[in-house]
Amino acid sequence: MDEGSAGRTDGTGLEVLGPVQCASLLEATPIGRLAFVVDGEPVVIPVNYAFVDGAVVFRTLDGQKLQAAIAHQVVAFEVDEWDASTRKGWSVLVKGRAEEVTQWAEAETLELVDLVPWAHQVWRDRWVRVTPHQITGRRVL
Amino acid sequence: MDEGSAGRTDGTGLEVLGPVQCASLLEATPIGRLAFVVDGEPVVIPVNYAFVDGAVVFRTLDGQKLQAAIAHQVVAFEVDEWDASTRKGWSVLVKGRAEEVTQWAEAETLELVDLVPWAHQVWRDRWVRVTPHQITGRRVL
Repeated sequence: MDEGSAGRTDGTGLEVLGPVQCASLLEATPIGRLAFVVDGEPVVIPVNYAFVDGAVVFRTLDGQKLQAAIAHQVVAFEVDEWDASTRKGWSVLVKGRAEEVTQWAEAETLELVDLVPWAHQVWRDRWVRVTPHQITGRRVL
Repeated sequence: MDEGSAGRTDGTGLEVLGPVQCASLLEATPIGRLAFVVDGEPVVIPVNYAFVDGAVVFRTLDGQKLQAAIAHQVVAFEVDEWDASTRKGWSVLVKGRAEEVTQWAEAETLELVDLVPWAHQVWRDRWVRVTPHQITGRRVL
């Protein structure tokens, strides 16, 4: 509420967040929801992620449906925060192409990112990166 | 943590939540994320919703892209809650068919539901219902 946005609102009365605010919120949030398409139908799952060099990165398992589903697909990614008592909140939506990080040097760099999967019983040894081509944000006034 | 689940875990080490737990979490949560497909690509947006008679219901605007997109489409809906400090959390995923509530009597009944859109500057006068054909839940142990 104090981030100095331009205060512009969209057609539904929500405050439009600027690119710097969106990036800052993406950096500060540990959990988002990844949406992708499998056999023409939408799937949405929570992932814990990091926002590194302007891209959403997360770990995944080898051989999972997810792994196949997101290979070079356009995916959507959403983060939000809200307070039921004040009915305030914000959301940031990312649209981009997902790909596995297969360059060893880059994967090594990502290993330095503090991103330990919360579900740690089974180790997720692959990295997926979503490179955004669109990032938008809204806040309930 | 105290809901008396069977404690079964899935292949990735997450606790599997039963149908009663999932319904209870859906009833207690005010915000979820709706994922649907537009022109073959996924879209995910937050909505404030209610869980009424086993279905997800929310208000929307007339004439919105959303309105067209979800008409009789299979959609995915996700709710979650998490705590970054303990790295604990849960999520419930719903898959179902979306449709507008066009029966006047039913819409009247829904008006009695305490569901005021948080973004209240523009009134959302249409109701959408997602009737689940699958509900699954997981908790990070």
